[in-house]
Amino acid sequence: MKIILGPASKELGEKVAELTGFEKVPVASRVFPDGESYIRLEGTVQGEQVTIVHTTSKPQDTNLMQLAFMANAAKRNGAKKVTAVVPYLGYARQDKIFLEGENVSIETVASMLKAAGVDQLITVNIHAETALNKFPFPTKNLSAIPLLAEYFVGKGCKNAFALAPDKGALYIAQQARQVLGGDAGSLEKTRDRHTGQTKQTGKHLNVNGQTVIIFDDIISTGGTIVGAAQILKEQGAARIYTACVHGLLIGDAEKRILDAGIEEIVATDSVPGKNSKVTLAPLISEALKAL
Amino acid sequence: MKIILGPASKELGEKVAELTGFEKVPVASRVFPDGESYIRLEGTVQGEQVTIVHTTSKPQDTNLMQLAFMANAAKRNGAKKVTAVVPYLGYARQDKIFLEGENVSIETVASMLKAAGVDQLITVNIHAETALNKFPFPTKNLSAIPLLAEYFVGKGCKNAFALAPDKGALYIAQQARQVLGGDAGSLEKTRDRHTGQTKQTGKHLNVNGQTVIIFDDIISTGGTIVGAAQILKEQGAARIYTACVHGLLIGDAEKRILDAGIEEIVATDSVPGKNSKVTLAPLISEALKAL
Repeated sequence: MKIILGPASKELGEKVAELTGFEKVPVASRVFPDGESYIRLEGTVQGEQVTIVHTTSKPQDTNLMQLAFMANAAKRNGAKKVTAVVPYLGYARQDKIFLEGENVSIETVASMLKAAGVDQLITVNIHAETALNKFPFPTKNLSAIPLLAEYFVGKGCKNAFALAPDKGALYIAQQARQVLGGDAGSLEKTRDRHTGQTKQTGKHLNVNGQTVIIFDDIISTGGTIVGAAQILKEQGAARIYTACVHGLLIGDAEKRILDAGIEEIVATDSVPGKNSKVTLAPLISEALKAL
Repeated sequence: MKIILGPASKELGEKVAELTGFEKVPVASRVFPDGESYIRLEGTVQGEQVTIVHTTSKPQDTNLMQLAFMANAAKRNGAKKVTAVVPYLGYARQDKIFLEGENVSIETVASMLKAAGVDQLITVNIHAETALNKFPFPTKNLSAIPLLAEYFVGKGCKNAFALAPDKGALYIAQQARQVLGGDAGSLEKTRDRHTGQTKQTGKHLNVNGQTVIIFDDIISTGGTIVGAAQILKEQGAARIYTACVHGLLIGDAEKRILDAGIEEIVATDSVPGKNSKVTLAPLISEALKAL
């Protein structure tokens, strides 16, 4: 096995190579002045099984095209099998038709990766696992929640309350509880039938005087986290943190979250940024060694 | 036949629908704050042959993904056959491997469009026709040079000298001459073996006192056109214009060309912009009616 260091996840790819002991294949990449991407594998892959580590967060379209180009390059240069490790999978949320005339973006992404030469996919905390049904090759979805929870154990937050901001994320809070050892629970989102606005409620929480960590798969604009923080404060939570796998943190999301009284935002390096405090390298390395 | 108005070529699509009399299918499109594109066909395509008109100039990657999404939407919503009209085909210049480890980008583009649901492709003045061999479905390459030459006939430039900036573009100048009725010729590019720099020469031109139009398929940075203008002025050309199909005009290309003494830059709407003075609508309409 060789690890192709995709430009969108170069540091993560290097860490994976180090942990697994697999040989690295650097990638020369640039964007031409006319806007087109160029990539070249700077190592041989002839007869090899290769793994491309390359996330597809913003700019999603360019990162997706570069991933397809690397798969094409690997196959053209003789690779036997191409595994794509895509920590954040762009377009995973458009996995069904909501209105007539729409497309299923993740289906297009899946078939384009197949056509480019990808043979299997490993991703991390995909928003809905059903999206993986659109892939015409084997897929694996890893969970980074235990790693995030371990980060908080390391900070002295053992037994903290693991909160999901809505019922859909309750399984995430429950995974975190396995590591933290405290309680877990979720808020509820209700939608006003007339205005369409959502409102969070949390009648049955027992967080008074406790440290609470709000866990979610993705933080986008941060609205959900800010809403959760307000309820937690009303209910007497002593300290509030938030953790997510994919810290998209669009616009002023980070500022809004911190202004809401949350002490720290912790994300993984699926979306590289200053809040990427937990690396996915051990999780990915383990999955690759088990292939 | 219905015409899907791709967001990258909405005006051109509307003109094509008008000239052909084919029904239009508008497209709702937007880019979400997280960077992902959304598209939805706002008309029925069930049982129809459809043509998507959508160029893939800058931002190439986003335009390519949107084209794939529209093809997916058309097929999912029951279209029988999907023709993609892509006036400027992104990545057409990476059509072979120049260095070991590279990919063939246009091959990836071709296979991704196939996987998304495209059944045939119509493009305009692709840089090298051999790139079309990478497509796993029928393709057609149209030439907009006669339309560009007619623009200059309309301006009173009949019998102008049609100049290609290098020998590779001589066929373009010859197509223009068919309409203009004057002479045609080309400069030569030589490459210094030591410095790698190219130099244009034009020993055998007969342009003294004449109007000259420099024709090319693509104008990118404009360096070639500026170099040609200098030679033409040395040889006594009276007036110099330049025409291209695809006016990428990167950075300050336009200013550099005009500063070099060229009176006007004329391009088509394959890359929408202020120099898109010639529409491809008649050319595309004719090709669609002949399908």
